[in-house]
Amino acid sequence: MDSNLFKKGGFTLPGEAGYEDLTLKLAKKWGADVIRDSDGTQLSDKIITSDYDIYSTICLVRADNEWAKANRDKLQQCYIMSFPIAATSDVVQIDLLKGFSKEQLQVNEDDNPYEWWQVFDRTSGEEVPKAQWQYSKKSGIVIIKDARKWHRYTVNFLAYRIWEEISAYNHITNDWGDKEHLMPIEPMYEEAQEKILAYLERWLQEHPHTKVVRFTSMFYNFWWLWGDDPNRKFIVNDWGAYDFAVSSFAIREFEKVKGYRLTSEDFIHNGLYNNSYLPPSDKYRDWMNFIIDFVTDFGKKCIELVHKYHKKAYVFYNDHWIGIEPTLERFKEFKFDGIIDGIFNGFETRKVAGTKHVATKELRLHPYLFPTGVNGAGTFIEGGNPTLETKTYWMDIRRALLRESVDRIGFGGYLHLVEGHPDFVEYVEALATEFRMLRELHKDDRPYTSNFKVAILTAWGNMRAWGCRGHFNHGNYYNEVMESISGLPVEVEFISFKDVLEKGIDSHTKVIINAGSLDDAWSGGWNWQNPKVIEILSEWIWQGGGFIGIGEPSANKSGNQYFRLSHILGVDREYGLTIGFDKYKYAPLKTSHFILGDIKEDLDLGKYTDNVFALDCDTQVLADEDKSVQIATHTFGKGRSVYLAGHKYSSDNVRLLHRAIYWSAHSEEAFSHWLCSNIHTECAYYPNHNSLAVINNSFEKQKTVVKSPDGTFIEIELNPCESKILEL
Amino acid sequence: MDSNLFKKGGFTLPGEAGYEDLTLKLAKKWGADVIRDSDGTQLSDKIITSDYDIYSTICLVRADNEWAKANRDKLQQCYIMSFPIAATSDVVQIDLLKGFSKEQLQVNEDDNPYEWWQVFDRTSGEEVPKAQWQYSKKSGIVIIKDARKWHRYTVNFLAYRIWEEISAYNHITNDWGDKEHLMPIEPMYEEAQEKILAYLERWLQEHPHTKVVRFTSMFYNFWWLWGDDPNRKFIVNDWGAYDFAVSSFAIREFEKVKGYRLTSEDFIHNGLYNNSYLPPSDKYRDWMNFIIDFVTDFGKKCIELVHKYHKKAYVFYNDHWIGIEPTLERFKEFKFDGIIDGIFNGFETRKVAGTKHVATKELRLHPYLFPTGVNGAGTFIEGGNPTLETKTYWMDIRRALLRESVDRIGFGGYLHLVEGHPDFVEYVEALATEFRMLRELHKDDRPYTSNFKVAILTAWGNMRAWGCRGHFNHGNYYNEVMESISGLPVEVEFISFKDVLEKGIDSHTKVIINAGSLDDAWSGGWNWQNPKVIEILSEWIWQGGGFIGIGEPSANKSGNQYFRLSHILGVDREYGLTIGFDKYKYAPLKTSHFILGDIKEDLDLGKYTDNVFALDCDTQVLADEDKSVQIATHTFGKGRSVYLAGHKYSSDNVRLLHRAIYWSAHSEEAFSHWLCSNIHTECAYYPNHNSLAVINNSFEKQKTVVKSPDGTFIEIELNPCESKILEL
Repeated sequence: MDSNLFKKGGFTLPGEAGYEDLTLKLAKKWGADVIRDSDGTQLSDKIITSDYDIYSTICLVRADNEWAKANRDKLQQCYIMSFPIAATSDVVQIDLLKGFSKEQLQVNEDDNPYEWWQVFDRTSGEEVPKAQWQYSKKSGIVIIKDARKWHRYTVNFLAYRIWEEISAYNHITNDWGDKEHLMPIEPMYEEAQEKILAYLERWLQEHPHTKVVRFTSMFYNFWWLWGDDPNRKFIVNDWGAYDFAVSSFAIREFEKVKGYRLTSEDFIHNGLYNNSYLPPSDKYRDWMNFIIDFVTDFGKKCIELVHKYHKKAYVFYNDHWIGIEPTLERFKEFKFDGIIDGIFNGFETRKVAGTKHVATKELRLHPYLFPTGVNGAGTFIEGGNPTLETKTYWMDIRRALLRESVDRIGFGGYLHLVEGHPDFVEYVEALATEFRMLRELHKDDRPYTSNFKVAILTAWGNMRAWGCRGHFNHGNYYNEVMESISGLPVEVEFISFKDVLEKGIDSHTKVIINAGSLDDAWSGGWNWQNPKVIEILSEWIWQGGGFIGIGEPSANKSGNQYFRLSHILGVDREYGLTIGFDKYKYAPLKTSHFILGDIKEDLDLGKYTDNVFALDCDTQVLADEDKSVQIATHTFGKGRSVYLAGHKYSSDNVRLLHRAIYWSAHSEEAFSHWLCSNIHTECAYYPNHNSLAVINNSFEKQKTVVKSPDGTFIEIELNPCESKILEL
Repeated sequence: MDSNLFKKGGFTLPGEAGYEDLTLKLAKKWGADVIRDSDGTQLSDKIITSDYDIYSTICLVRADNEWAKANRDKLQQCYIMSFPIAATSDVVQIDLLKGFSKEQLQVNEDDNPYEWWQVFDRTSGEEVPKAQWQYSKKSGIVIIKDARKWHRYTVNFLAYRIWEEISAYNHITNDWGDKEHLMPIEPMYEEAQEKILAYLERWLQEHPHTKVVRFTSMFYNFWWLWGDDPNRKFIVNDWGAYDFAVSSFAIREFEKVKGYRLTSEDFIHNGLYNNSYLPPSDKYRDWMNFIIDFVTDFGKKCIELVHKYHKKAYVFYNDHWIGIEPTLERFKEFKFDGIIDGIFNGFETRKVAGTKHVATKELRLHPYLFPTGVNGAGTFIEGGNPTLETKTYWMDIRRALLRESVDRIGFGGYLHLVEGHPDFVEYVEALATEFRMLRELHKDDRPYTSNFKVAILTAWGNMRAWGCRGHFNHGNYYNEVMESISGLPVEVEFISFKDVLEKGIDSHTKVIINAGSLDDAWSGGWNWQNPKVIEILSEWIWQGGGFIGIGEPSANKSGNQYFRLSHILGVDREYGLTIGFDKYKYAPLKTSHFILGDIKEDLDLGKYTDNVFALDCDTQVLADEDKSVQIATHTFGKGRSVYLAGHKYSSDNVRLLHRAIYWSAHSEEAFSHWLCSNIHTECAYYPNHNSLAVINNSFEKQKTVVKSPDGTFIEIELNPCESKILEL
């Protein structure tokens, strides 16, 4: 492939007014075909009228701050549980917003507290009768009478959100000083919808040069509560939680549709809220569906309007993405033309790449062209190394792109910040070319992939496919596995317990992975109490299915196993109540095993589950540490299971997982097809192009040998981080 | 003190027929005043008629094997849950004894299975109706019809115990070959009682030279199920569990007394049984009390008989000790003259030393004069080092003896085994002298001790004072703390949640320690769900009490804290469902803190609880590891709390705990009284003797300085393991 043919296209550049020359210079150098604005930047006429397509960002719920200020009772809301206060007498005073950011939140006093709020004695678990407490508007304090001394009390209350979170984040990160705080309006009110549609129409008229309207995103941001203490800047941050779609109005509407009323405690749930780590309850699923219905219905109208003006509508798979759920079939109703996400790694790449019902998929790469990154560390300011950062992310992204491609990449932020970083400017040019070449391989082609499916089983299933609670949740077994598998040549699907119960296991599925911790949504929590789940999975495994359990698979304390599939996995966990029971004295396997075929150095599974024991001599222990099983295999009927005490995304473990998949699928023979001998390298073969893409995932030079299914050996040398495309 | 004055007395030697000269020679050398037999050894006439007092062991329930053989329906029993079998069709066959030692157990077919047994579907948690299963006597198999495929089934059944466990252990360890297996008889039958009393009387008549009848022990052994696989020799081993007192007869008697019937599942409890790690339920307490009543009532009769023959009755605080419970007030009803226990360490020493209502307390030291030890490692055979072993145990025992003394020490086993170990023979002589000198200091005296009490709070309280599940349960927070505190100059008491609820906190108590793990008896488990417990403890701490939480103190998942006293401790634990919640960014304390005053090297708390976070700025974090709090202090009203993420018995940690106790008691000033500067040394001051005992707990030479309350400094040098007594 001639790289000169891949110098332009599929690249979105953030333009910046005042830096017109730089914008146009870099657009050319990086081969951009699109220039976009960002939150906080403008595009000047010179840019807008240049020869590039223009993307313009729009965030409808914070777009009209005048209307928001004039309609403060129509701001977005959320339920909050006050921090618990222990009663030191029979009167307890709870300052509702203590600990929370008063710049973000304001107590909602418009909806009758005695109808909407609940006060709980969290020590006894009982609700405090309404007659026993009083809210003082003046002080923002709830006073509880006849409190039980030493019990801890909390108040569930409604709060308005008075500073739209993403805007607030950009405001603070980029030091916008006294720039007005934008407030998010609740689009469920008809007046708000009228305002929004009118605003959008006017905006469309005023942006004749805009080709793509980039929604950032629809209406409700993911859940992100802020604190008032510099040592606890954020209270909670959950990309998947629907808490910011809660309002008194929505709850009333929900009641009309679903026929029952949700209480504050349905949302607060003893302080756990309905966070992504909890297996969703039926009530919560109802609520999500209700919000999805609304977002789809009203979202459609916005997109129709965009189309009416012959523009395209792209959606940002983040920020106000709640209710969009691109993995669901309903997503097609929006009629979006494209989807964009700001991503760091492989599984996020697959999240975008796997989106159906959009013509264009775009990755916004990191780092953002901001002085500092999400965690506050320097990026484009002194101390940052944006080139190294970009390379690091890109290597993880690239392996996912080998498997499934996207159409575009791009950056966001303040373009002028790159000026002091000539190496970054050069590297992005090379990266863009590399991206285009890899993308080309996917045209009318599909890389060599396993002829069977691997299903990842969680309580969320497809709804949190290639997603967990946000960006990479390190140490979370599910997330680590997703990242590893995002670059493997296997077909992956995400299934839920509901899927298993309603549809059984797809006939193309040969391996099921369950990776998570006790009670969490990733392992499955209470779903494992359902005997039907055990029955279906047992039958399927017995008939020859492969099951890989990672961390605390099938863990639930309801039965007399800790892992409810311990008899299938061959291992269980000592959780502290059966210390007196002697455990079977296993002997770790001395001979080699297919799964360990590429483990050269010490095994490092990362954070792992300890106190795991083998049940009996039928369990083959492949590795252990501190007398706790790390890797074990077991058979159940014709089925094979693999237990891994942990998983951490690393070259070693990616290969280990790859082998575990093929072993449990009884497909050892097919494993070596189009496989790199060197675990720091990976490859993909594209049959229609008869081309092989080989990547070096390390910062060192690597030699590798790829074996084709016909037995030919192909030797490749790669520079650090390099990729090569070989036409065979 | 002149060591020559301490060459004789308080020492029990195991004699051995055939080795009369050795017996008498060592009796002299070691200053024995008593010669005993052991299980498997005899004393010859030459020994019996020598000038020594004679202790003779007797174990009544295995004493008359002829009667046992003739009355196999009156053997002791127990409930067993068969190993679970997953149904692969609608018929399940369960071989009841599969996995269990058939030398130990035999299915009880005399009591109607359909009345006494229960079959459970452990997958659904439901009992299988009696009509659905059948027991085949011929095969020992239960067949379940209409099983639900893939569900796991178990049978709760009654088994006779056909090889008395301690005898079996001695048999196997000492290779007794085809010596007849002794069977334990159930003493609750009147016929059995008559037989036992008659046997005892005859035995007393036949042992005119015996001065002390050493009961080994009363009737029911602690719970010890054996397996049939060399890789799982034991199924379970729990020194505190009453499962071997279970029989059909006892359950019927229980029903008469308590008015309700216990089911098999009351004992099996979903496979957890009623093991010591579980907080005892009311039903289980009823059962224990019922057994205690019986053991006391019938035990009294045996002891009366001994007294009738003008002999003394000592009891072994182990083996068949179930129902004796020496920490309970009822224990005095037995009228035992002495108590003996085979011990390894400090807390076991305190267990014996603290026994009330007996004139004589004796420690049987380890190692046992057996070829191998409890774990199968060599002792007196090649590869063993009995001197080093003895020294190691003795150093831990000695520090406890500084605080509370016993009357005697001794050994057990086969004396001839010491012949190849002259260094052992010498060392025991020195040890015996050292013991007598230390014992002397306690005469009419009490060492300097804290003027306040430290209460250790568990679900068991006093009933498992200085005891956990057997010997040292390493890694168990409660056990590690007990061992450390066993040698500290503080007054210790053990309290239960029941005590707290019924009696409140004793006015002399200044510090409460709660050390354990989620749901276990040591932390307290479900007891923490009781708001009354929270109320009483909160009030007490608020008024100035000290609270030390170790590991997972007050842990319970019922509330919206994981540690139900997190607001008092200032820390809580992330247990995997609130990962999305940001934690307060604490800064570990930079300045010195009283508690850390002696930590010179890296902190090593042993196995510790991870993912512990500080609540807010009121929590003082003294140490952390991997961003998890290891040590924190917090105040609550006038009270002080200390959190320790773990505790491992070591010189460093003993001192850390000592300081934590004094700090939380607001008694920092008194801390340095009679304290060794060097943490590898400890001392005790005996005011009436005006003497100071100083011990070196290490295998290295040590220098140390002791500060007396009047400010005098005393410098001492100690050889490895040495102790010195200074008359001041």
